[in-house]
Amino acid sequence: MRVAIVMGSTSDIPKLEPAVEILKNHGVKVDVRCLSAHRAHAGLSAFIEETNNNGTEVIIAAAGMAAALPGVVASQTVLPVIGVPLSGSVLDGQDALYSIVQMPPGIPVATVAINGGKNAAWLALQIIGINHSEIKEKLLAQRVQMEKDAMKANEEVMAKFE
Amino acid sequence: MRVAIVMGSTSDIPKLEPAVEILKNHGVKVDVRCLSAHRAHAGLSAFIEETNNNGTEVIIAAAGMAAALPGVVASQTVLPVIGVPLSGSVLDGQDALYSIVQMPPGIPVATVAINGGKNAAWLALQIIGINHSEIKEKLLAQRVQMEKDAMKANEEVMAKFE
Amino acid sequence: MRVAIVMGSTSDIPKLEPAVEILKNHGVKVDVRCLSAHRAHAGLSAFIEETNNNGTEVIIAAAGMAAALPGVVASQTVLPVIGVPLSGSVLDGQDALYSIVQMPPGIPVATVAINGGKNAAWLALQIIGINHSEIKEKLLAQRVQMEKDAMKANEEVMAKFE
Amino acid sequence: MRVAIVMGSTSDIPKLEPAVEILKNHGVKVDVRCLSAHRAHAGLSAFIEETNNNGTEVIIAAAGMAAALPGVVASQTVLPVIGVPLSGSVLDGQDALYSIVQMPPGIPVATVAINGGKNAAWLALQIIGINHSEIKEKLLAQRVQMEKDAMKANEEVMAKFE
Amino acid sequence: MRVAIVMGSTSDIPKLEPAVEILKNHGVKVDVRCLSAHRAHAGLSAFIEETNNNGTEVIIAAAGMAAALPGVVASQTVLPVIGVPLSGSVLDGQDALYSIVQMPPGIPVATVAINGGKNAAWLALQIIGINHSEIKEKLLAQRVQMEKDAMKANEEVMAKFE
Amino acid sequence: MRVAIVMGSTSDIPKLEPAVEILKNHGVKVDVRCLSAHRAHAGLSAFIEETNNNGTEVIIAAAGMAAALPGVVASQTVLPVIGVPLSGSVLDGQDALYSIVQMPPGIPVATVAINGGKNAAWLALQIIGINHSEIKEKLLAQRVQMEKDAMKANEEVMAKFE
Amino acid sequence: MRVAIVMGSTSDIPKLEPAVEILKNHGVKVDVRCLSAHRAHAGLSAFIEETNNNGTEVIIAAAGMAAALPGVVASQTVLPVIGVPLSGSVLDGQDALYSIVQMPPGIPVATVAINGGKNAAWLALQIIGINHSEIKEKLLAQRVQMEKDAMKANEEVMAKFE
Amino acid sequence: MRVAIVMGSTSDIPKLEPAVEILKNHGVKVDVRCLSAHRAHAGLSAFIEETNNNGTEVIIAAAGMAAALPGVVASQTVLPVIGVPLSGSVLDGQDALYSIVQMPPGIPVATVAINGGKNAAWLALQIIGINHSEIKEKLLAQRVQMEKDAMKANEEVMAKFE
Repeated sequence: MRVAIVMGSTSDIPKLEPAVEILKNHGVKVDVRCLSAHRAHAGLSAFIEETNNNGTEVIIAAAGMAAALPGVVASQTVLPVIGVPLSGSVLDGQDALYSIVQMPPGIPVATVAINGGKNAAWLALQIIGINHSEIKEKLLAQRVQMEKDAMKANEEVMAKFE
Repeated sequence: MRVAIVMGSTSDIPKLEPAVEILKNHGVKVDVRCLSAHRAHAGLSAFIEETNNNGTEVIIAAAGMAAALPGVVASQTVLPVIGVPLSGSVLDGQDALYSIVQMPPGIPVATVAINGGKNAAWLALQIIGINHSEIKEKLLAQRVQMEKDAMKANEEVMAKFE
Repeated sequence: MRVAIVMGSTSDIPKLEPAVEILKNHGVKVDVRCLSAHRAHAGLSAFIEETNNNGTEVIIAAAGMAAALPGVVASQTVLPVIGVPLSGSVLDGQDALYSIVQMPPGIPVATVAINGGKNAAWLALQIIGINHSEIKEKLLAQRVQMEKDAMKANEEVMAKFE
Repeated sequence: MRVAIVMGSTSDIPKLEPAVEILKNHGVKVDVRCLSAHRAHAGLSAFIEETNNNGTEVIIAAAGMAAALPGVVASQTVLPVIGVPLSGSVLDGQDALYSIVQMPPGIPVATVAINGGKNAAWLALQIIGINHSEIKEKLLAQRVQMEKDAMKANEEVMAKFE
Repeated sequence: MRVAIVMGSTSDIPKLEPAVEILKNHGVKVDVRCLSAHRAHAGLSAFIEETNNNGTEVIIAAAGMAAALPGVVASQTVLPVIGVPLSGSVLDGQDALYSIVQMPPGIPVATVAINGGKNAAWLALQIIGINHSEIKEKLLAQRVQMEKDAMKANEEVMAKFE
Repeated sequence: MRVAIVMGSTSDIPKLEPAVEILKNHGVKVDVRCLSAHRAHAGLSAFIEETNNNGTEVIIAAAGMAAALPGVVASQTVLPVIGVPLSGSVLDGQDALYSIVQMPPGIPVATVAINGGKNAAWLALQIIGINHSEIKEKLLAQRVQMEKDAMKANEEVMAKFE
Repeated sequence: MRVAIVMGSTSDIPKLEPAVEILKNHGVKVDVRCLSAHRAHAGLSAFIEETNNNGTEVIIAAAGMAAALPGVVASQTVLPVIGVPLSGSVLDGQDALYSIVQMPPGIPVATVAINGGKNAAWLALQIIGINHSEIKEKLLAQRVQMEKDAMKANEEVMAKFE
Repeated sequence: MRVAIVMGSTSDIPKLEPAVEILKNHGVKVDVRCLSAHRAHAGLSAFIEETNNNGTEVIIAAAGMAAALPGVVASQTVLPVIGVPLSGSVLDGQDALYSIVQMPPGIPVATVAINGGKNAAWLALQIIGINHSEIKEKLLAQRVQMEKDAMKANEEVMAKFE
């Protein structure tokens, strides 16, 4: 099980660390790269080529502003590419959201919420889980736990407002 | 290979027919349903339960306006859910885009472009292709063909403006 | 007189406490719950079922981002549901506003302002007041007081700028 | 059972006729008025005063552009006021939505979707239904029918894509 | 020479103080009021009536959120009404801008920038200046001074970057 | 009584003709010009200079897209300048609205609604009316008529829905 | 004198033909290509490489939706790249505008208006004109003509409204 | 080699200093001015006239809010004008972006990102580089360095997440 995470700038690291952690906690090998679509063109293409041949199952690409990275990655692979729009300009990620989600027919990017690094990881796990039953089991267990936690939070709220 | 497509209203059919066609052309079994999150609550839950147990690999959910459908589906399965925001209100799908893409941590929806039914199908195929080499082959062939078509279009444009 | 308040996350508590207080100050029994539409599906349905049978007159549902909660509640009851869009993502509640107000025909949500917890309570009281004359009296008295306070503020402003 | 509907302009009639029809079909007496907040100030105040004393339970107010009408009505009554933002300017109702939903604390307007005349009627019925069991019964029956219709539509869609 | 300034809330004072000061510095009598369109309905109408009969030449009305105040004032006078949209909600004044500028035909509001209190005062002076040559003279002198200040700032910038 | 109307393009004529008509009907001399801020720089400055010396009381300036015209006019006169944002690009006048209303301190533009040519005329009349009692009388009479028309429309609506 | 024009899709031709015509009318050699950043990756890189070595002075790149093309071109050349955002999705080019203009430091794209094909050509000519005095002369002559045309339009408008 | 930089206000200096520095580091003579389109009309025209006759190759114009400056400059020169929208109002530069980019046919402004001072400088250098091979060489060297830096950042990221 192998997932690649590509970001456009080192300043994006804090927004992607939770994704790396979630994936590693599930036993997924994670290759993290910082390869801007605009500044590391050849390096990016080389890395995508690598992922096409090393068993990578999903690529997560995160970028802000005119966020071309996820689409450029998607155009060079038929692996599913998850795009994470990042806030960072004064436009609060609205620019990145449009730049990532509005892809033309034939080259999709699976877009998650603005700054949605965690959900990129969960989505990658769901995709991997289709064929890795141990991941699927963990995800199902997590949903059960999530619901338990939610119900416990509910009890606390009920107690608080009694 | 099996993909479920759920739409919120029969008026969405024309926007999803191309997705059905693309998937069927690749030999994928497609289960199409019209099950609004708000009007067919029990029927929707029953269908999601079905998909969790019949070998479905990906669910595509399309909706307009306060498009709760993809998120509601995603909350009841650990299969990857692809969300398609549909235009339909006077807000041109901007409402549906926000309602689908801005999911909270733990329950991701893989969002594609507004009215992006075709890309939902292509993304589903890419996800399926991870473990079905014949699909991956077809997708790679398609990319080659897509590039050929693009280059041919380029030649026509060059000729036109000579 | 009974009102249910459902929020999606414990982090929403501060935005809803004023609503609880307003309602309690008017002698309304308030049931507060934290039941995410996405993470506490069964618990939420169970609670809505309860409200349908315990004399609850109005349900207030508050959520941020892809705020499905108010719509999901509305789809399971014919009690009036008041939706409160919460800011919380980088989009400042614009995403939640669209997700809550743009409901399809047949399943309305009575939407108030972004972070409008207080007005959700006042609206609930107005609805209750239709048939509880003591509440209606209090609301009328409050309007008189509100106007007095406004006129007093006006006098202070007049004095300040004399 | 009595509901008042106020619109700002005769050009809004087609967007409110379905609301009148839904309410009348449920045996509700409907008073329809065309009283702009800006052009029929005294007439509007007189009518609101009337509704405060003739057993009206809910007021629906619909307006486009700088849609002050619902808020102005709300400031002169403690009956619940349902606001319907109407498209009509080049801004497609986004201006009316903001003008109606963003009310200050103390004077709520229960806002429905842009051009959501039908849902204004359904919401009014839900409010009335709290204390009129025959309306509540009809709404519950309608939900059952709505679900049946939804499931029938689903069967048609299933058949179409078999 | 007399200008009325009406604001919706005492929290708006800091945004309007510069306007009061500019007007007073030009010898204009300024009547400042805090009269919400929604909370001080009768007081507001009484004050507008006053301005219609005490020689007031211009009314400045400032409000945030669903900013009905300027339009409501405009509907009760044929004096020119200057509207100042105020930021104050999470929507940064975009809601107030739409609520103020998008007035229907026949009842105009002269809208200035979001938080544009100063320009409301300058615009009032320009309107007054049409028939008060001493104000017009001062405005012309001010433009000359403004240009001198601008050219001096330019020289400083030139010196800085030499 | 004299008002100048400047538009940026001959294609704007239909949106300003109603303004010319309203003004002429009130006995106001109207000077209409088509002088783009960007394409007729000298001609525009010459015309503004003229208005500063020929008794013009108000200037109406209308433009679409990056609508610099009203601001450029305002910077060359101390007469009140009314700005009319015009739709015309794919952005439906939102671009023109921002370009006109967001003026810096010292150079105000009195902005009316997108495509609000009529209200520009009414606002000009209100400004003129401050010192021309016959105009003020007419405006007051018009408001009475407007209210009569509104009440008559109301009666028709009442009859229709009886 | 040589300019390259790259579009993402043959459907963009009508929006770029006026640009080709303007450039050819000024004696500029124009190379027109249809090379999507996402579908013709290698062909696009090869063409950019060509332009870097064949005397091309400016590249115009036009695209809609998640318009990566101009930025991708800009990342592979130090020639000035002019970006033209095209409307084409339901978002009316707002998506393309953000995707093109919000480039990160170091890789600028000179963005013109949505659907601003003509201005892309004029901007290219202005850039070329810096070092080609015959182009600069023509541009200056054109501005003179533009002003004459503007003044003639003004006279027609004056006559019409006399 | 000579570039002019014009800003509308001294408060814009910090956003343009990096641009001055980049240009000076490349041996370009930079003339910096603070000349508001609205407050320094004559001074601005005089300066543009100067640039038309002193060998200036590119003009950079930066402004916020109703940012008329870049367009006004562009209308008085056939040199390429680069526009920099600045944030500064509560609208975060969205107002300035529309005011600068949406220019009418014939008078283009080469718009860069909101607060994109650096990219204005890089774009100016690319334009100058067409005919100054030493600048072009430096830009090419810089791209090589940029890529090296990017690849080094990538190595650090790889090491961090090993």
